[in-house]
Amino acid sequence: MDIKDRVRNKALHAKIVSAEEAATVIKPGMNIGTSGFTPSGYPKAVPLALAERIKKEHFQINLWTGASVGKELDGALAAVNGINKRLPYQTNNEIRKSLNSGGVKYCDLHLSHTAQMSRYGFLGGKVDVAIIEACAITEEGHIIPTTSMGNSASFVQSADIVIVEVNTSQPLALEGMHDVYIPLDPPHRLPIPIVKADDRIGTPYIPCGLDKITYIVPCDIRDDVRDLAAIDDDARAMSALFIDFLKKDIKAGRMPKGLLPLQSGVGSVANAVVSGFAESEFTDLEVYTEVIQDGMLDLADVGKLKSASGTSFSPSPAGLERFYQNIDTYRKIMMLRPQEIANSPEIARRIGVIAMNTAIELDIYGNVNSTHIMGTKMMNGIGGSGDFARNAYLTCFFSTSTAKNGAISSIVPMVSHVDHTEHDVDIFVTELGVADVRGLSPKERARVIIENCAHPDYKPMLMDYLERAEKATKCAQTPHILTEALSWHTRFIETGTMKKQ
Amino acid sequence: MDIKDRVRNKALHAKIVSAEEAATVIKPGMNIGTSGFTPSGYPKAVPLALAERIKKEHFQINLWTGASVGKELDGALAAVNGINKRLPYQTNNEIRKSLNSGGVKYCDLHLSHTAQMSRYGFLGGKVDVAIIEACAITEEGHIIPTTSMGNSASFVQSADIVIVEVNTSQPLALEGMHDVYIPLDPPHRLPIPIVKADDRIGTPYIPCGLDKITYIVPCDIRDDVRDLAAIDDDARAMSALFIDFLKKDIKAGRMPKGLLPLQSGVGSVANAVVSGFAESEFTDLEVYTEVIQDGMLDLADVGKLKSASGTSFSPSPAGLERFYQNIDTYRKIMMLRPQEIANSPEIARRIGVIAMNTAIELDIYGNVNSTHIMGTKMMNGIGGSGDFARNAYLTCFFSTSTAKNGAISSIVPMVSHVDHTEHDVDIFVTELGVADVRGLSPKERARVIIENCAHPDYKPMLMDYLERAEKATKCAQTPHILTEALSWHTRFIETGTMKKQ
Ligand SMILES: CC(C)(COP(=O)(O)OP(=O)(O)OC[C@H]1O[C@@H](n2cnc3c(N)ncnc32)[C@H](O)[C@@H]1OP(=O)(O)O)[C@@H](O)C(=O)NCCC(=O)NCCS
Ligand SMILES: CC(C)(COP(=O)(O)OP(=O)(O)OC[C@H]1O[C@@H](n2cnc3c(N)ncnc32)[C@H](O)[C@@H]1OP(=O)(O)O)[C@@H](O)C(=O)NCCC(=O)NCCS
Repeated sequence: MDIKDRVRNKALHAKIVSAEEAATVIKPGMNIGTSGFTPSGYPKAVPLALAERIKKEHFQINLWTGASVGKELDGALAAVNGINKRLPYQTNNEIRKSLNSGGVKYCDLHLSHTAQMSRYGFLGGKVDVAIIEACAITEEGHIIPTTSMGNSASFVQSADIVIVEVNTSQPLALEGMHDVYIPLDPPHRLPIPIVKADDRIGTPYIPCGLDKITYIVPCDIRDDVRDLAAIDDDARAMSALFIDFLKKDIKAGRMPKGLLPLQSGVGSVANAVVSGFAESEFTDLEVYTEVIQDGMLDLADVGKLKSASGTSFSPSPAGLERFYQNIDTYRKIMMLRPQEIANSPEIARRIGVIAMNTAIELDIYGNVNSTHIMGTKMMNGIGGSGDFARNAYLTCFFSTSTAKNGAISSIVPMVSHVDHTEHDVDIFVTELGVADVRGLSPKERARVIIENCAHPDYKPMLMDYLERAEKATKCAQTPHILTEALSWHTRFIETGTMKKQ
Repeated sequence: MDIKDRVRNKALHAKIVSAEEAATVIKPGMNIGTSGFTPSGYPKAVPLALAERIKKEHFQINLWTGASVGKELDGALAAVNGINKRLPYQTNNEIRKSLNSGGVKYCDLHLSHTAQMSRYGFLGGKVDVAIIEACAITEEGHIIPTTSMGNSASFVQSADIVIVEVNTSQPLALEGMHDVYIPLDPPHRLPIPIVKADDRIGTPYIPCGLDKITYIVPCDIRDDVRDLAAIDDDARAMSALFIDFLKKDIKAGRMPKGLLPLQSGVGSVANAVVSGFAESEFTDLEVYTEVIQDGMLDLADVGKLKSASGTSFSPSPAGLERFYQNIDTYRKIMMLRPQEIANSPEIARRIGVIAMNTAIELDIYGNVNSTHIMGTKMMNGIGGSGDFARNAYLTCFFSTSTAKNGAISSIVPMVSHVDHTEHDVDIFVTELGVADVRGLSPKERARVIIENCAHPDYKPMLMDYLERAEKATKCAQTPHILTEALSWHTRFIETGTMKKQ
C-alpha cells in the first residue's frame, strides 16, 4: 500500500520500511511502549512481524500499552510466549490465561499513573522502543494519532527508537480530534489548565520531529473492534434507577441542575447507562471519560451531547461505521487526550465527574472488587476505575445482584480482593435498587446495601451474617467473623454455588 | 479573662458571651463543625459547656472536625454519650471504645474529601453550627486561627451559626502563619494555584465578616498536646534504611537530586524518620504534609528546613515550648493551610511528594491495612494516608516487622482490612529492610516483601503459604488459599499468637 501522501515530509520517505525490517531493532528484554487503548489505535503490522521473529528466535520483551489492545498485538505476542512483563491493563484471553498460570508477569496499574511511572523510571528502565499507529506524519515529523491516544505521546517522548505505523484504514478525517498535552515532571509540573470538560490545551499531534523517527511502516489492518452485548433488562433497569436517583439528588440540592460531566466505564452495562441518558430529560450532556463507546454516539445523534472527551474511541463494528459516516459532525464535539489527562485525578476532581463503573463484587461494607475472580484469578485489571472513583464528585458502582445464573451473589460478606475501599464509593446500583451510602458508618451501610441491592435469595443470608458478626464482635466498627468472611467464595469453589444446600 | 483587645472590632464586643450561653444555640441532632486537627486548635470552652448541658438534657449531636481533637471536645462529649455521628477521624479512647461497641456512628473519610462532601450535602445535611478557635478577630470580622486549620474555613462558610472561641493561651504571634483558600465547587472550580510547596495563595485569616459571627466566647485552656514516644532502635533503623534508599534512588536517576517535598504521617515512627533527615546530608528540605511535628523543628534548628506546609501544628509539650520561644523564626518557614489544600491530590501529585505513612499490617502482595485491628476494631481512621499514598511521587509505608512482642507478624498472607491497595504503594520499610515493589507483579512482590521485610520467625511460614497458594491456584495472578488467608488472624485471636504451636 502507498502511504507516501500520508508521510508529508518527503525526506521521511527514506525511512519507510517493511514491518519485518522495523521489527529487527527490537532486542530481547526491551521495554516496548505502544499506542493503543481498547482494540483501538494499536500498532498491528510490526507486532505481527515481531511475533514471527520471536517464533523463530525465542525471546521475550516487556509490553507497555495504553490499556487493552487488539489480537494482533496482545494475542500474537502471547501466542508465541513473547511477553515477559505486561502493563498496565489487558482484556486478552491468551494473556489472561498466561498471567493466571505463572506465565506473563502482569503489573496492574492505575491508568493515570502509567506514563509518569514510566518517565520516573519506576517500571524497570524507560521505554526503549515506541511503536505508534498514525493516520499521518506532518511536515515537521509530528505524529497524527488514530482512534486512541493512550500513553503514546509520553512513550514517544521517552523512547530512543520510534517506529510509526501509518495505517491507511484509519481515515485522515481523524486529524484534529486529538489534544496532546504531556505534563512536566516534579518539581517542574504546572497545573493542567483544563477547567471545562471540552477545553483544548495541547497540540493536535504527538510532538516527535523528523530526527526522532527511526522507521515508518505501512499498515492497512483495521481496528479489531468488538460487538457490545445487547442491552438487556437488567442493564435497562440499572440505567433507569440511576437516572431517577440523579433527578432526586438534583431536587435535594446535592447535584447541579445541569448535571456534571459523565464518566462511564468499559463494557455493556456502562454503555447501557449512557444510552439511557438519550431517553432522559437531560440535555447538553458533557462526557469526560476514558472510553467513548456507542452510547455516546446515541447521545450525539439525539442532540443531547455537548461534548465528549476520552482517551480512546472504542465502538462496536456498527458504531465504527456510524462514526466514519459522520466523522465531520462527531469530530466537532469529540476529543481524544492522553490517558494521563483523560484519567487525571486533578481534572476529575476539579470538574467533578459523575463516575459510573462496574464491579465484579462488593461487600456489605462497601468495598469493591473490580479485578479478581474468587480473590485469585485476574479478570482484566483496575484500569481507570480508581482514577475516577477516588476523585469523582459522585462515585457509583454498578453490578447485577447475582452472577452465574444466581449461583454467585455479587454482594458478599467480605470481598475476596479490594480495589476500591469503603472510602471511595457513594452509590451502588443493582437491577433491584440503589444504595446511597454517603456519610454512613459501616454498620449503617451494610443495612442499606443489603436492603436495597441484594438478591432475595441472598438477603436473609447476608442479614444473618451481619447480625452474627455484630454479636461476635460486640458491634465493632466493621463486624466480621474472620473464619466465615470468605466462606461464600470457598463454598462456591467447592459446591458450584454460594447458596447453602 | 479579657479578650477585648483580641476582638479588634468594638461592635463585636457585644457578642461576647459565656460558653454556657453560646452552647444554648446547639439543638439536638445538629451537625456541629469545629476547628481542630490533632489536639491542636480545637474549641474547648463551648464543648465543655455543651457536655454539661447534654448531661442534664440527654441529647446527641453530630460532630465534624478536621481530624482528631483533644479531650475537652471528643472526650467530654463521648463521656456524656453526646455524639451520634462522628467524622472524619479520631484518636480518642472514649470515642474509640464507643464506636467499637455500637455507640458512636463513625464515618471514616479521606481527610481531603471531608470539606467538599460537607458542602455537597453528602454527609446528611450541611454544617449547622461552626465552633472555631481563634487567636483574634480582625476589624472586618475575619477569624485568625490558632494551631490548626483543618476544615475551619469551609465550616464557617457553610454554617448558619458561627461561634468563635478566642483563646488567650494561643500567642498572637501565630497571626500570619495561615494561608486560607477555599476552592469553588464544580462546575466552577479552578486549578489550585500552588506549584511550589511554600506558595501562598490565600488570606491569613478565615473569611467570615461581622454579621456572620453569632457569639464570641473567651477561653484560656491550652492545647492538650501529647508526648511522642521516644525514638527507639527500630524507628532509627527504619529511618536510616529509608534515607539510604533515597540516596540510591537519586543515584539511579529515579529521584531528583534535591529530593521532593516530604509528607510524613502522624506518630512516632513518622517523626523519627523526619528527625533522621536532620543528620543526613540532605539540605534545603521542603515539607508538604498534614501535621507538623517535633521532627520538623529539629530540621529547622539545624538549618535544613527550607519550608514546611501543613494543616496542623502538633508538637509534644516540649516541642510546643520550643516553638513558642522562637515563633518569629519558625513562622517565616512554616505555614498552615486548610486540609482540603494540605492533603489535595492535585497538589500532592503536581509537586510530587515523598509520602511516608505507617501501616498496621501489610500483606505479601502489598495491600495495606491502616485502620482495623484484626479486621474489625477501628484504631484511628484512614486520615490523610490515602490522599498522599495514591498521589505521591513515591509512596512508602513503614511498620515494624512484628507487633505485640512478636506475637503478631505485621506481614500476613492477606490483610484483614484494606485501606491502600497494591496499586498505591511503592516501598515498604521495616526495621529489617526495604522492599521496593515498583513495577512488580504480585508474585514478584511477595518474594521481595517476604525476603526483605519479614521477621525471621515468620519468613518460612510466609514462604510456605506463598508456595502452597501458588500450587493450589496453579500460579494465578494473586495466589491465595481462601480457607487459610485470614487464619493467621484467627489463630492470634484464639491462641494469642500468630505462631504455630
Ligand atoms: C468488572 C468488570 C470485569 C465487569 O465487566 P462486565 O463485562 O460488565 O461484566 P460481566 O457481567 O460480563 O462479567 C464478566 C465475567 O465475570 C463473571 N463475574 C461477574 N461477577 C462475578 C462474581 N461476583 N464472581 C465471580 N465471577 C463473576 C461473569 O460471570 C463473567 O464471566 P464470563 O466471562 O465467564 O461469562 C469490568 O468492568 C472491568 O474489568 N472493570 C475494571 C476496569 C474498569 O472499571 N475500567 C473502566 C474504568 S474507566
Ligand atoms: C497505623 C497507625 C495506627 C500506627 O500508629 P503508631 O502509633 O505508629 O503504631 P503503634 O506501633 O503504636 O501501634 C498502635 C497499636 O496497634 C497495635 N498494632 C500494631 N500493629 C498491629 C497489628 N499488625 N495487628 C494488631 N495490632 C497491631 C500496636 O500494638 C498498638 O497497640 P496498643 O495501642 O494496644 O499498644 C497510625 O499511623 C494510624 O492511625 N494511621 C492511619 C492514619 C494515617 O496514616 N494518618 C497520617 C496520614 S498524613
